[in-house]
Amino acid sequence: MSTTTPTRDDKFSFGLWTIGYNGTDPFGGPTRPQLDVVEAVTRLSELGAYGLTFHDDDLFAFGSTDAERQKQIDRLKQALSDTGLIIPMVTTNLFSAPVFKDGGFTSNDREVRRFALRKVLRNLDLAAELGAKTFVMWGGREGAEYDAAKDIRAALERYREAVNLLGQYVTDKGYDIRFAIEPKPNEPRGDILLPTLGHALAFIETLERPELVGVNPEVGHEQMAGLNFAAGIAQALYQGKLFHIDLNGQRGIKYDQDLVFGHGDLQNAFALVDLLENGGPNGGPSYDGPRHFDYKPSRTEDITGVWDSAAANMRTYLLLKERAKAFRADPEVQAALEASRVPQLSLPTLGAGESYDDLLADRASYEDFDPSVYFGGKGFGFVRLQQLALEHLIGARS
Amino acid sequence: MSTTTPTRDDKFSFGLWTIGYNGTDPFGGPTRPQLDVVEAVTRLSELGAYGLTFHDDDLFAFGSTDAERQKQIDRLKQALSDTGLIIPMVTTNLFSAPVFKDGGFTSNDREVRRFALRKVLRNLDLAAELGAKTFVMWGGREGAEYDAAKDIRAALERYREAVNLLGQYVTDKGYDIRFAIEPKPNEPRGDILLPTLGHALAFIETLERPELVGVNPEVGHEQMAGLNFAAGIAQALYQGKLFHIDLNGQRGIKYDQDLVFGHGDLQNAFALVDLLENGGPNGGPSYDGPRHFDYKPSRTEDITGVWDSAAANMRTYLLLKERAKAFRADPEVQAALEASRVPQLSLPTLGAGESYDDLLADRASYEDFDPSVYFGGKGFGFVRLQQLALEHLIGARS
Amino acid sequence: MSTTTPTRDDKFSFGLWTIGYNGTDPFGGPTRPQLDVVEAVTRLSELGAYGLTFHDDDLFAFGSTDAERQKQIDRLKQALSDTGLIIPMVTTNLFSAPVFKDGGFTSNDREVRRFALRKVLRNLDLAAELGAKTFVMWGGREGAEYDAAKDIRAALERYREAVNLLGQYVTDKGYDIRFAIEPKPNEPRGDILLPTLGHALAFIETLERPELVGVNPEVGHEQMAGLNFAAGIAQALYQGKLFHIDLNGQRGIKYDQDLVFGHGDLQNAFALVDLLENGGPNGGPSYDGPRHFDYKPSRTEDITGVWDSAAANMRTYLLLKERAKAFRADPEVQAALEASRVPQLSLPTLGAGESYDDLLADRASYEDFDPSVYFGGKGFGFVRLQQLALEHLIGARS
Amino acid sequence: MSTTTPTRDDKFSFGLWTIGYNGTDPFGGPTRPQLDVVEAVTRLSELGAYGLTFHDDDLFAFGSTDAERQKQIDRLKQALSDTGLIIPMVTTNLFSAPVFKDGGFTSNDREVRRFALRKVLRNLDLAAELGAKTFVMWGGREGAEYDAAKDIRAALERYREAVNLLGQYVTDKGYDIRFAIEPKPNEPRGDILLPTLGHALAFIETLERPELVGVNPEVGHEQMAGLNFAAGIAQALYQGKLFHIDLNGQRGIKYDQDLVFGHGDLQNAFALVDLLENGGPNGGPSYDGPRHFDYKPSRTEDITGVWDSAAANMRTYLLLKERAKAFRADPEVQAALEASRVPQLSLPTLGAGESYDDLLADRASYEDFDPSVYFGGKGFGFVRLQQLALEHLIGARS
Repeated sequence: MSTTTPTRDDKFSFGLWTIGYNGTDPFGGPTRPQLDVVEAVTRLSELGAYGLTFHDDDLFAFGSTDAERQKQIDRLKQALSDTGLIIPMVTTNLFSAPVFKDGGFTSNDREVRRFALRKVLRNLDLAAELGAKTFVMWGGREGAEYDAAKDIRAALERYREAVNLLGQYVTDKGYDIRFAIEPKPNEPRGDILLPTLGHALAFIETLERPELVGVNPEVGHEQMAGLNFAAGIAQALYQGKLFHIDLNGQRGIKYDQDLVFGHGDLQNAFALVDLLENGGPNGGPSYDGPRHFDYKPSRTEDITGVWDSAAANMRTYLLLKERAKAFRADPEVQAALEASRVPQLSLPTLGAGESYDDLLADRASYEDFDPSVYFGGKGFGFVRLQQLALEHLIGARS
Repeated sequence: MSTTTPTRDDKFSFGLWTIGYNGTDPFGGPTRPQLDVVEAVTRLSELGAYGLTFHDDDLFAFGSTDAERQKQIDRLKQALSDTGLIIPMVTTNLFSAPVFKDGGFTSNDREVRRFALRKVLRNLDLAAELGAKTFVMWGGREGAEYDAAKDIRAALERYREAVNLLGQYVTDKGYDIRFAIEPKPNEPRGDILLPTLGHALAFIETLERPELVGVNPEVGHEQMAGLNFAAGIAQALYQGKLFHIDLNGQRGIKYDQDLVFGHGDLQNAFALVDLLENGGPNGGPSYDGPRHFDYKPSRTEDITGVWDSAAANMRTYLLLKERAKAFRADPEVQAALEASRVPQLSLPTLGAGESYDDLLADRASYEDFDPSVYFGGKGFGFVRLQQLALEHLIGARS
Repeated sequence: MSTTTPTRDDKFSFGLWTIGYNGTDPFGGPTRPQLDVVEAVTRLSELGAYGLTFHDDDLFAFGSTDAERQKQIDRLKQALSDTGLIIPMVTTNLFSAPVFKDGGFTSNDREVRRFALRKVLRNLDLAAELGAKTFVMWGGREGAEYDAAKDIRAALERYREAVNLLGQYVTDKGYDIRFAIEPKPNEPRGDILLPTLGHALAFIETLERPELVGVNPEVGHEQMAGLNFAAGIAQALYQGKLFHIDLNGQRGIKYDQDLVFGHGDLQNAFALVDLLENGGPNGGPSYDGPRHFDYKPSRTEDITGVWDSAAANMRTYLLLKERAKAFRADPEVQAALEASRVPQLSLPTLGAGESYDDLLADRASYEDFDPSVYFGGKGFGFVRLQQLALEHLIGARS
Repeated sequence: MSTTTPTRDDKFSFGLWTIGYNGTDPFGGPTRPQLDVVEAVTRLSELGAYGLTFHDDDLFAFGSTDAERQKQIDRLKQALSDTGLIIPMVTTNLFSAPVFKDGGFTSNDREVRRFALRKVLRNLDLAAELGAKTFVMWGGREGAEYDAAKDIRAALERYREAVNLLGQYVTDKGYDIRFAIEPKPNEPRGDILLPTLGHALAFIETLERPELVGVNPEVGHEQMAGLNFAAGIAQALYQGKLFHIDLNGQRGIKYDQDLVFGHGDLQNAFALVDLLENGGPNGGPSYDGPRHFDYKPSRTEDITGVWDSAAANMRTYLLLKERAKAFRADPEVQAALEASRVPQLSLPTLGAGESYDDLLADRASYEDFDPSVYFGGKGFGFVRLQQLALEHLIGARS
């Protein structure tokens, strides 16, 4: 069906490291050869994606000479030019090389921190050159296994110093780039700094240029802390900070699985798509940035499985979008929402112009209010509403 | 030993609902009779606590007449006067009565929200009357089991409306009271609004009077999301928002256990006490508020077990304080911290007055920096440091 | 549609405590009045269920006189007679009353253990009288919060003593009853004896009459340990021990949610129904016992929500059954299974009559086998297969 | 102190892959060069260990020629001879090479299964040659990410076929070797077959030679499912199946951390050592096999940190052993255990020769038993007992 065939308007993007994942995990080496960036761009374009993203080290290996680096950049540019794909986001790898074994911006080792800043500044220039609008910062190594090993407040102060400097840099350079912090609770470190989107949102408020910095939440990362991803995204939207999003699948609290979007908690994926697509003030999209897939084709797959899995991400998103649209359009759902008093939550608790003195004077709100009717009555009908959502999700009402 | 005998200077406080917990849980009714508030105050005083805290409904049942309510307030005041105990914190119950089955400040039902505000305003007056300096808000029912049932952004907006109104109220009244939001990820709701201290810190920045509002993190609540409690407290301190703290024990990601402090993750409890007691700028306390125990005496216990458990909380805290002091004083620990470059993290990454241009010009930071020496070298010595911490914790080096 | 309207042939049963749940949880009292057993039977019958199950204390309160007890039994019998509903399973409450605060069969208190045995023997007689074929044992209080408090091996020996005695009893009495142990990892105890279905299956092998004892796994209980429920059920079936099953919904590792079936991990629910309905040797059912719902209508609901939620359990099961049937019938799915070599796993690894000597002599199996072709090749196509399952689940291929 | 200096009598052993871990994890490559087996043996011997264990691929790379293989075996033998270290256990790697991407014994691909059997048979011969008494089987790749991808019952049948064949082989060859299955819930597969020690114990009962097969539980693996490790070990001991044990540390439900023993859940580590050392029938050891450390030196460490961490494992074990001994010897602890009725659980519930008829006739057990005294009385004193354990653990009572 046409609505489930991806187009560039859908703004689907993929990390080069996702389709390029070679299968290495803690208990085994690669099961697939390296994927060349030109093939990546070409196939993504054919599949209907609009964007590619990358870490510096994805495109050219850590320690590349300037010539090697430039060659890869040129090959990428040519492929973009050939296909029309864009680079909506770039990010820097501060976690793979041994030098970053205690992190980058917050390594206990000051020389490492300086090196990390240099690496990021160089990659920011490249991001700007390629037209990226978002610069993601995933601080996967910024953390510790042992409480005594890391002074968390000092680490936050160093992270703040780094982000302030980067904000100054893009401002001075006139780069049209915003930053998005990607939180994760753990893995590869025992505990990672800014473990959830909440912690990241809070930290952003301490920055010199908070307006330049938002979050890039990832489905699996929040779910690794047992948190409701769609609810977290709603708070990020509420605070005006959803600058980018990483879509994938995770089956509960365990290691980071990076499954295909929808192959994890399907009900929450449905709620998420409903929020992104229908949660705006007028029922339209609440977020208009890239739908970025940060997943890994399972290690069991060969290259056919890689591209099947890439396509599956987009198709699932579009199928859920269809279902979310039908859900919102169903009069029975509208009635159920009303019965559950969901729209009533958008009404201010106080009346227009009402002060607390007015409220205190309103006997109906307290003295004459009978809370006992909520025992055995005034049910919220939430289970019925959930069942309607489930039935729309599984296509049982269309 | 004298240093492990609690005194009022230790600022230990207990919720009336903690020692008063009657043993009810999802699979069984009470195993203990109700504890009278006067007995509670008397025994806590004898054990060395300095404060009692309570929800309105702990002191006088929901729906009490004004006379019943006043009688209980008077009995409490007399007990305080007789013992010298104080009321450092008060909180309001918006979660037990059927009327709050979908929450208080963020119930979908507007009448419930108005009733909730009235209940809190009334209890704020009582808090002020009793001299409480902190008003805790645990929104345990503010949440949902089903994604479609709650518009999270509307809920945040209603929560914000409520806290703004309360901030206005205490300001106008001249109450010397600050608010502390207590986060929790789930239970009794499937997902609770502001699930971690990070989410709460972020939300606070959206308020009209953010300076009036901080957090009251609880050991077990953060650990129910698999988060490092001591690390979270460090961020709350970093952001100047640790207004109150709830100490208890939790054994991993499961239902809310409310064990005695230290009876859960002992190593993190050690790190926490070390942070609270030795984490200040000059090595002194980083937090000087109440050490508040929000725990439940196990359902298997009778009244003897209740008081044994109350005493255990304080004794464990003081034992850990002793060990943390010895840990910090040990020259071998100091050397190990140095070797792990922990103090180096407090040095700014940039030199005094150094700009990014200076950094870019510093070839030592990048062009001449050799990252390869971090392979097979430049180890951080974190495991040895952790072993030293462990050995201090278990009293093997004193 | 007719296939999603429950009939008695579907063997849907409900616990009296499920629809009768009054809303009490750790942070609040009841929100609904008590449900009478006659109303329960009548409404369940109307909704299409075939069976009711109960704990003794559900039907007549703990401590009832013989007359009160008998009256309730008689009322139940009359309702069964009036409706045709049956009692496929009975269980005994050894967890709610204060006497069981440290458990029943494995309480440290020997008098409690004797009382527990008497309570169960009495209830076994009632189960037999009512024609129940399965007697479930959920040992929710058999456990501990503290390691020193419970000698686990002694507890297992006492549990074994109890089950052996019960097995002797039903054998001697000629009761047509089998036992089913219901595992749970925690809540209400910090750690519960026999925490997963694996532990229970292992324990059963130590009994005098293992053939009389199987398991009654519950969706949410296994998922509270992060385990794959459908995979666990497959092992229970493999070991011939799936004597009963508890269907409900759980959203990850947290407190026991007891949501409606399907309102938790929907993909695993789909796999489960597929296994139960299509997993038999000839593609038919692999399990023919009751489809028993052990869930709780959310505390937010009134009586309308209670019955809506009861109906939702059955409807979701039947919808998933439809989808599982279509999944198995789809030729593309069959081809994908083949490509993933799923059927090949049913072929013995050794040939008919092949010995290890033959295998050692088979150079094709090792010396001439080229493992390198599995690098970059021989992909398993699992992601595509999963996507097909997902699309069938959400009705996108029917 | 002498009791905390490891000796060979302590039976401490280490996997070659543990001290040899090069730091590779899902987000970064090695941070340390390869450790030579001769250095490993020499240093372990100096540190006081008695044994080394290994996978075939640890000693000689997958795909080694016979000559390369033999050279490494010879070098190992010489080092053993030079130091007196022994090889108590050997295991085979069926998880790293691409050929095992869907597992070994239960790969969907029959040729892989045959290859896996050959690899194991060959390594069994080597194990026998080196005098190993235990052969561990960790089936880390035996599992699936997607429910439709793996027929669990067929997988169990294939696993059973394999273990039966291996049992036949060692029996025929007269090898003095027993097998130990090592369970794990997930990682690197989404769900692993036989996810907990309970599932493994249950499976063993289906084998042809169950007496040859036990379990090798690992601290972190059970804790990744939120299970109480010491309690699980007690069940394994109860069923006579603790053939080997893997000691390490894990901080809750997350990726497999493989920390130093004691650097995870310290209280459960204390309970474990108490069980292993003091849990025998006469208060002596309940387990006399190797104390095997299966941990990873943190990726942040260089070779100094590697050996510091190896030493830390043994020292922590011995420190906990000291504390457990003092705990058991303390008269106040003995009195507290008595008060908690812990010893009473070892008394049979029925008297000697008592039948259920006798029990039914004993009015004291039911008709005249007053359960109401357990409300507000008959407390179990568990919290006090736990506090005593804690204080012994932290050396506060010695």
